[in-house]
Amino acid sequence: MIERLCIIGVGLIGGSLARALRAAGACREVVGSGRNEESLYRAVELGVIDRYELDFGSAVEGADVVVVAVPLGAMEGVFRAIGGRLAPGAVVTDVGSAKASVLEAARAAFGGIPPWFVPGHPIAGTERSGVEASFPGLFEGRRVILTPLAQTDRAALECVRELWERSGAQVVEMAVAHHDEVLAATSHLPHLLAYALVDALARMDESEEIFRYAAGGFRDFTRIASSDPTMWRDISLANRDAILVMLERFGEVLGHLTRAVRERDADELMKVFSRAKAARDRYASKDGATRNGP
Amino acid sequence: MIERLCIIGVGLIGGSLARALRAAGACREVVGSGRNEESLYRAVELGVIDRYELDFGSAVEGADVVVVAVPLGAMEGVFRAIGGRLAPGAVVTDVGSAKASVLEAARAAFGGIPPWFVPGHPIAGTERSGVEASFPGLFEGRRVILTPLAQTDRAALECVRELWERSGAQVVEMAVAHHDEVLAATSHLPHLLAYALVDALARMDESEEIFRYAAGGFRDFTRIASSDPTMWRDISLANRDAILVMLERFGEVLGHLTRAVRERDADELMKVFSRAKAARDRYASKDGATRNGP
Repeated sequence: MIERLCIIGVGLIGGSLARALRAAGACREVVGSGRNEESLYRAVELGVIDRYELDFGSAVEGADVVVVAVPLGAMEGVFRAIGGRLAPGAVVTDVGSAKASVLEAARAAFGGIPPWFVPGHPIAGTERSGVEASFPGLFEGRRVILTPLAQTDRAALECVRELWERSGAQVVEMAVAHHDEVLAATSHLPHLLAYALVDALARMDESEEIFRYAAGGFRDFTRIASSDPTMWRDISLANRDAILVMLERFGEVLGHLTRAVRERDADELMKVFSRAKAARDRYASKDGATRNGP
Repeated sequence: MIERLCIIGVGLIGGSLARALRAAGACREVVGSGRNEESLYRAVELGVIDRYELDFGSAVEGADVVVVAVPLGAMEGVFRAIGGRLAPGAVVTDVGSAKASVLEAARAAFGGIPPWFVPGHPIAGTERSGVEASFPGLFEGRRVILTPLAQTDRAALECVRELWERSGAQVVEMAVAHHDEVLAATSHLPHLLAYALVDALARMDESEEIFRYAAGGFRDFTRIASSDPTMWRDISLANRDAILVMLERFGEVLGHLTRAVRERDADELMKVFSRAKAARDRYASKDGATRNGP
């Protein structure tokens, strides 16, 4: 049982975690903090948090566990603000989508990676953002990746693992660099492609008309282009190197496909589409099994 | 009321149209045809069609309306087979996703575009295929684009318009070349991108593990990569020119975005993401209004 949980950044992720832990009876009090007072006030109204402090340092005082759920670009500032204000024995974790960057921010703010800091990342979300979009089931059956370092305290790690398990998630551990590569492939690259596609269409003269004839496939394909621009600007900067590698890899495959279209290479098109369909069907069936499993 | 409707290619589209028209009481008898007897047998079992003929020519005999719902690459062969076997006054339409290519096939098979041939394309579908995936509500509130030519018979055009309206769709007319551009932008390009992304990931050494950590955004983004490879090979070949234009346009925007990531250009990233989000949100709200409207 967490006596006092502090959530800095009560948006989709932070708000959903607070809701899930409250619903599970896993914490007694939730203190919120963030830059936007109106949104914190709304979080209290919605019963997501008990109270809020606008000052990050005041918010963490007396908290057993602190979850930093702000955009990557705001991490270092938050770490600096809370550094000297944590209670003895407090555990701090984050939910950032690029772990090397979070560790860099922690190193800069704390003068090293403290044993009580456990880097984490829930593989969950929707294209919506803000506390209004939060819901307690967001992490149900989803994976949370923790990327502890050699110096990470085992008890702190177990505390964060339990926190996520109580919210319904499955927790796995992974090396920092590997996490960043995997996320560049499965999340960051697709977001950039969706943004680029919608922007390419939006910049065409007849864009209004073009969007009018878009069907369900397009709606699904571009859903992630409705995600929060600030968050994705920060991720693009924070995981730059792994993203550039994936952009290049994708560019090669798309170039290959473009050549096949140009040269009317029916066999090659069939080969690529069939291979992709097989991989996607395999993934979808496993994903379904995981999410709906026993 | 259509006395005898003939559907050649009783898959997702052909099967759903037959179901919708039967449900609406808009036709008395439905005769199916296609290459796969097992699938036609199943269509009879499911009550989608009344009977089937494996020979395309025999299937169209005595039919008032013939809907050709086969992959683009199979159109010309079907047109050749039915040419001399149609009943006097019969109307023929198709559902192909690239209209210039269908008209080329019709010209080759019929020695010109007959007044009774009405090119059409329902903007509807799912990533699934085959008669098992068909359902009567597929066209409900969706758009169907007809691309009649100067010589198209007005009565034939009205007959096809009514057929789609009875299935729940909204019918619009458009010039052939414009249809092919719009579809390249909103459907063909996204499909190629989804196939390319999944293929790029599938070809990575750790692909199994990578797919394991894909979340909901990835699932939505890649759903269309589960589409039928034969259909998409044919579309890629049939709408080659418009697709190549869109691939180039997309490549420019993605190149621009890649440069912004490489040069850590936060402002430019924010600009592109915000513009894309605004366009996508605007589209999604209109799309919702259309689909759920009165």
